[in-house]
Amino acid sequence: MTNKTELRIGLIGCGFMGRTHTNGYKRVSDFFPELTYRPVLKAVCSRNKDKVQAFADQWGYESVETDWKVLIARDDIDAIDICAPNNMHAEIAIAAAAAGKMILCEKPLARTLDEAVLMVNAIEKAGVKNTVWYNYRRVPAVTLAKQIIDSGKLGKIFHYRANFLQDWTISADLPQGGEALWRLDIDAAGSGVTGDLLAHCIDTAIWLNGGIKDVSAMTETFIKERMHQLTGKMEKVEIDDACLFHCHFNNGSLGLFESTRYARGHKALYTFEINGEHASIRWDLHDLNRLEYFDHADDSIVRGWRSIHVTDGDQPYMNKWWVPGLSIGYEHTFVHQVADFLKSLETGEPCSPTFQEALETQKVCQAVIESAASRSWKDI
Amino acid sequence: MTNKTELRIGLIGCGFMGRTHTNGYKRVSDFFPELTYRPVLKAVCSRNKDKVQAFADQWGYESVETDWKVLIARDDIDAIDICAPNNMHAEIAIAAAAAGKMILCEKPLARTLDEAVLMVNAIEKAGVKNTVWYNYRRVPAVTLAKQIIDSGKLGKIFHYRANFLQDWTISADLPQGGEALWRLDIDAAGSGVTGDLLAHCIDTAIWLNGGIKDVSAMTETFIKERMHQLTGKMEKVEIDDACLFHCHFNNGSLGLFESTRYARGHKALYTFEINGEHASIRWDLHDLNRLEYFDHADDSIVRGWRSIHVTDGDQPYMNKWWVPGLSIGYEHTFVHQVADFLKSLETGEPCSPTFQEALETQKVCQAVIESAASRSWKDI
Amino acid sequence: MTNKTELRIGLIGCGFMGRTHTNGYKRVSDFFPELTYRPVLKAVCSRNKDKVQAFADQWGYESVETDWKVLIARDDIDAIDICAPNNMHAEIAIAAAAAGKMILCEKPLARTLDEAVLMVNAIEKAGVKNTVWYNYRRVPAVTLAKQIIDSGKLGKIFHYRANFLQDWTISADLPQGGEALWRLDIDAAGSGVTGDLLAHCIDTAIWLNGGIKDVSAMTETFIKERMHQLTGKMEKVEIDDACLFHCHFNNGSLGLFESTRYARGHKALYTFEINGEHASIRWDLHDLNRLEYFDHADDSIVRGWRSIHVTDGDQPYMNKWWVPGLSIGYEHTFVHQVADFLKSLETGEPCSPTFQEALETQKVCQAVIESAASRSWKDI
Amino acid sequence: MTNKTELRIGLIGCGFMGRTHTNGYKRVSDFFPELTYRPVLKAVCSRNKDKVQAFADQWGYESVETDWKVLIARDDIDAIDICAPNNMHAEIAIAAAAAGKMILCEKPLARTLDEAVLMVNAIEKAGVKNTVWYNYRRVPAVTLAKQIIDSGKLGKIFHYRANFLQDWTISADLPQGGEALWRLDIDAAGSGVTGDLLAHCIDTAIWLNGGIKDVSAMTETFIKERMHQLTGKMEKVEIDDACLFHCHFNNGSLGLFESTRYARGHKALYTFEINGEHASIRWDLHDLNRLEYFDHADDSIVRGWRSIHVTDGDQPYMNKWWVPGLSIGYEHTFVHQVADFLKSLETGEPCSPTFQEALETQKVCQAVIESAASRSWKDI
Repeated sequence: MTNKTELRIGLIGCGFMGRTHTNGYKRVSDFFPELTYRPVLKAVCSRNKDKVQAFADQWGYESVETDWKVLIARDDIDAIDICAPNNMHAEIAIAAAAAGKMILCEKPLARTLDEAVLMVNAIEKAGVKNTVWYNYRRVPAVTLAKQIIDSGKLGKIFHYRANFLQDWTISADLPQGGEALWRLDIDAAGSGVTGDLLAHCIDTAIWLNGGIKDVSAMTETFIKERMHQLTGKMEKVEIDDACLFHCHFNNGSLGLFESTRYARGHKALYTFEINGEHASIRWDLHDLNRLEYFDHADDSIVRGWRSIHVTDGDQPYMNKWWVPGLSIGYEHTFVHQVADFLKSLETGEPCSPTFQEALETQKVCQAVIESAASRSWKDI
Repeated sequence: MTNKTELRIGLIGCGFMGRTHTNGYKRVSDFFPELTYRPVLKAVCSRNKDKVQAFADQWGYESVETDWKVLIARDDIDAIDICAPNNMHAEIAIAAAAAGKMILCEKPLARTLDEAVLMVNAIEKAGVKNTVWYNYRRVPAVTLAKQIIDSGKLGKIFHYRANFLQDWTISADLPQGGEALWRLDIDAAGSGVTGDLLAHCIDTAIWLNGGIKDVSAMTETFIKERMHQLTGKMEKVEIDDACLFHCHFNNGSLGLFESTRYARGHKALYTFEINGEHASIRWDLHDLNRLEYFDHADDSIVRGWRSIHVTDGDQPYMNKWWVPGLSIGYEHTFVHQVADFLKSLETGEPCSPTFQEALETQKVCQAVIESAASRSWKDI
Repeated sequence: MTNKTELRIGLIGCGFMGRTHTNGYKRVSDFFPELTYRPVLKAVCSRNKDKVQAFADQWGYESVETDWKVLIARDDIDAIDICAPNNMHAEIAIAAAAAGKMILCEKPLARTLDEAVLMVNAIEKAGVKNTVWYNYRRVPAVTLAKQIIDSGKLGKIFHYRANFLQDWTISADLPQGGEALWRLDIDAAGSGVTGDLLAHCIDTAIWLNGGIKDVSAMTETFIKERMHQLTGKMEKVEIDDACLFHCHFNNGSLGLFESTRYARGHKALYTFEINGEHASIRWDLHDLNRLEYFDHADDSIVRGWRSIHVTDGDQPYMNKWWVPGLSIGYEHTFVHQVADFLKSLETGEPCSPTFQEALETQKVCQAVIESAASRSWKDI
Repeated sequence: MTNKTELRIGLIGCGFMGRTHTNGYKRVSDFFPELTYRPVLKAVCSRNKDKVQAFADQWGYESVETDWKVLIARDDIDAIDICAPNNMHAEIAIAAAAAGKMILCEKPLARTLDEAVLMVNAIEKAGVKNTVWYNYRRVPAVTLAKQIIDSGKLGKIFHYRANFLQDWTISADLPQGGEALWRLDIDAAGSGVTGDLLAHCIDTAIWLNGGIKDVSAMTETFIKERMHQLTGKMEKVEIDDACLFHCHFNNGSLGLFESTRYARGHKALYTFEINGEHASIRWDLHDLNRLEYFDHADDSIVRGWRSIHVTDGDQPYMNKWWVPGLSIGYEHTFVHQVADFLKSLETGEPCSPTFQEALETQKVCQAVIESAASRSWKDI
């Protein structure tokens, strides 16, 4: 451990994502001992002094800050990890880039395409290392899907479909805004399920199936008013509760996407399926260790969807963990992203998805929202 | 048996649907002995004399015809069952109605909305009994879904999604047109998957979730030219290979529909899911005896999707068959529709879906095709 | 139809099995038109005159009898189908054989091994065609399993496990004996789940994996007394409610079997799994169209259990029914057995399982019951 | 962190289990911040100096030892964690107890019942805190099963069945003995699958369903000779490759157990099912976040097995991790056991299973092996 190079982390935000990222930093060296870099939990920053101190105590950060500008100005910090609400991503990232810090930014990159473009410009100008936490790329089963697709086994692609279904906002009594509920506040979040859920589907889709050419979308806000936690008043809900779209991919395949927080019975069901000429693949987050695979080349009498339990040492990332048959979970995706980021420091290669790559997802999200608003197709 | 009233059937067409309907007629009295009507296989009609005679011999039709106009003119026929290709539905139905025959018409009702309107007008003018074979309504699990939804258990509906996925036309070597492949010929079929597959999804959706208000669709023809079986030449493929749309239902819920014959790995996967405020339901044709049901009212620690094996005597139609746990299959849906049609003769009630009801599905199909062509939303 | 040879059926018993067999006879010519024999429903026999007449009327039997000896004496009957309770199998079969009738006997062959031996002797002496209705061999997925195993794909076999789980006798208020409940009466049934359920598991096991060498078993009767329907009194329950055993097969593999009517949540869950050196197979009756198959020869990164939807034309029996993806059900197994019996009349080959083959299952059942009673291993 | 009481760990063995336990120690304070104790990785011990040093470097142990007696003698160690092969458990545990150390012992407790009794005696005499790592009790879904059963929802229990199926020793080329393969060596392991796999099934069974009264078992060694890694020679294989048994539980229910390393297609499939009068539960390790639950009290038309995704905050341990729908994995069971052990230091309650409780499992294992050897029932 001691002869590894330190990567001194400054984390901004100590909510749910602050926990997942921190856990990633803390575990990576145990499971990826060959890496020459190791993260050090230098500082965590959040406006609420008590809360940030408690977080630092629990997780072992060496120091705390309550002003992110101070954090960025510190010269004992190598990398800024942005886990603050979406409305702060752009300002922080641009400042951090200007200060020459590496940046690991929680998804979605920004609230709007305009913000995202400014961020990418800032990163590129500064030439700093960067990545965006579209963590689901690094579920071993999803990485395996990428590997299978890239091998050409699927042949020409005809269809891609994905959805992200939740049900946690069905109650009209749930307020909007404030600490745990900023995702329901248009100002903080920028959008509803589009940026929160659909952005994951889009990121994976582009990664697996290439760019999207045009989209036709619809959005809906089922509950029109909710009490706002910060004002204590009933206020109009301006986020989208559900967002659906179909599209053409550049490779000629058709896409179908749906996200909602009103699908009773689904806690966090992110699924995708891709159908090629020769083979098909599907996956869902609720059973994340499994990949379903259909290969038309199998003998016809014994042809069927295979349920692959992706826990073997020759499958992505799994030689780092346990033995065949023993599952890993959600949090491991962040460990993998940290590992790949550290590796990218060694190799000089980018750590996907970079800000530049995440911008593609942002463009699709923007087009989706505009398409829904105008009830018309939008080109990307 | 002998004191039942005969319903003398004249079947037009002896392809795949001719078999399923005939089996329905032959089985119904064994399993629904309480009915006062019984079907009699009076005549079957098809242009090819040898083929129709062989069909009659195999299935036990008393006579054959090669001209459907002759069949309709016979006074020993009570009901005309139309299993001919889609391009013949309108002409036959209008003539049969004029001749005062009851009509059982295979779906889709017609190739176009215009044809369908003429058919409905003819039926209404003649006042003859009629039904359209949207058979999937009568899978016991689907009928049970209807019963649960009508009981109000789901509460306000937010989402409905359905797809019908097949993979049998992926090979570019498959020809179009002619006997077994008329579904790939625009002139015979009127459309591709829209009328063949999506129409099923739409019929069920309207039945379960009410009318559709507007649609935004896309279609695709992946393979542009195929050899035509009748001409022996490569000809342009004009049907849609895939059709997707999203929509608003009149009840405010959002719909998402997809059908294709290019989804490798799916033979005939018709699925639907409906998400309500309090409960959700899903079903798929590949495992048609099962209904998935999620009830948010269950105790939270033991809440989950239930897999209901719909084979008990208190579930729809199942008191007619075997004992709990023992499955029925695809063909039983036709037996059920025959039983319900015979029952409707006793009660004087209509047998859903009637031509009038099937017209609603036709309107949506028409709007879907127009929306795809114009790349714009269409009201129903 | 008219130039087929008639096989004139005399059915004894008109309960649940009377219905399934009759349906088999009535449907076979529709779906297996190439057969040169066709069943004719000549007579049905049962002690209750009204009941048997109603059955005949519903299903179309030409005549009725109330004395099975009279039926057997009729010279217009070619084959006797025994659907009476188990305690009548031996007497009827022996008499029918003596009368030179073909015999189709519902399983289990007999109540005891002694009875079964007498039956086999009688059959062999008479030289009459015979078969026993172990219908699950003819689920297409199960027949496919046989085909795969016989191809050698599994290699050396290590394990075979099967169970048949039901839950319909859990209530202590359920009476025993009499018409619908003779299976709970030791005199009528001979045993409880051993002959009723486990016999199916054993028949399939021997067919797929060869003979059983020795067994160690246990049985249990959970509810000790039940009201008897015929006497109206509480009487001791003497059947086995549950029966479990492990065994060696002759091929060196280990077997594990379980049957019960006290497995809450299972209506009629018959499952088996066979593990070989190179591949494994599993199946369950609740989803009878599916066969699960694991092939270790698949590329390691995409290796997994395949869920085969056994509905394609190149899979056993399925070219007779519908199109890929469309399910058949429980009743079809009887149609298949009738078809194979008729075919065996053409070819002169036996129709498995014959009485001789069913005797093997009877031997295992006997050993199982003796092993449980003596708490010791028993050789077959 | 700093005001917590240290629990100074001395780990013996740095193989697979060394990793899982260490990870448990390292993560517990992050996720269970309320605990007043915190583990400190004081020392790790293994005979191979280089290997143990590498392990210490990777995982952050403060020091290393190569002689476990030296480790036990150190007064800066509070607790000894035994991850050495089974043949060392007894000697180490007895010495550690004598030295007054707390003991956390990997399962199975010992190779034989005699060894286990000596260990329990030593522990009790010394009065030291102890626990055995039957980690599967602490899969949240399994803990939830315990909670449901204890609530009485299942009513009288009729059946319990469990199996643990693997396929990693099918190749005859796999050697036995030595570092990674000591589980195949009778001297090191004491038994084959009985102690390795079946012991897990038995521990869970006793915990959920109470004590076992008597057993009838069989074992098999499929491959009779394997090259021994330490001698380089072909040697007789003396472990059991497969072990099956049935049994009576003290509560009158019947048990059925199976374990093997020759079930092609199963990596580490540990499943159990329990059937009660009113409800049933089943679980499998390959999809460890799910619990299947059937409640007969559900309305009959919507009754079915529920698939519960055990990831909600009101389900066992899950308020410590992420949000509903997001899975945890295998390794978390060890974190939970560490947490419960630390909690037991606060409360003074034992941390189940204690040595005394694990002795019950050992008794069953011993009876199973004796029953198989003698081909007779054995009382526990």
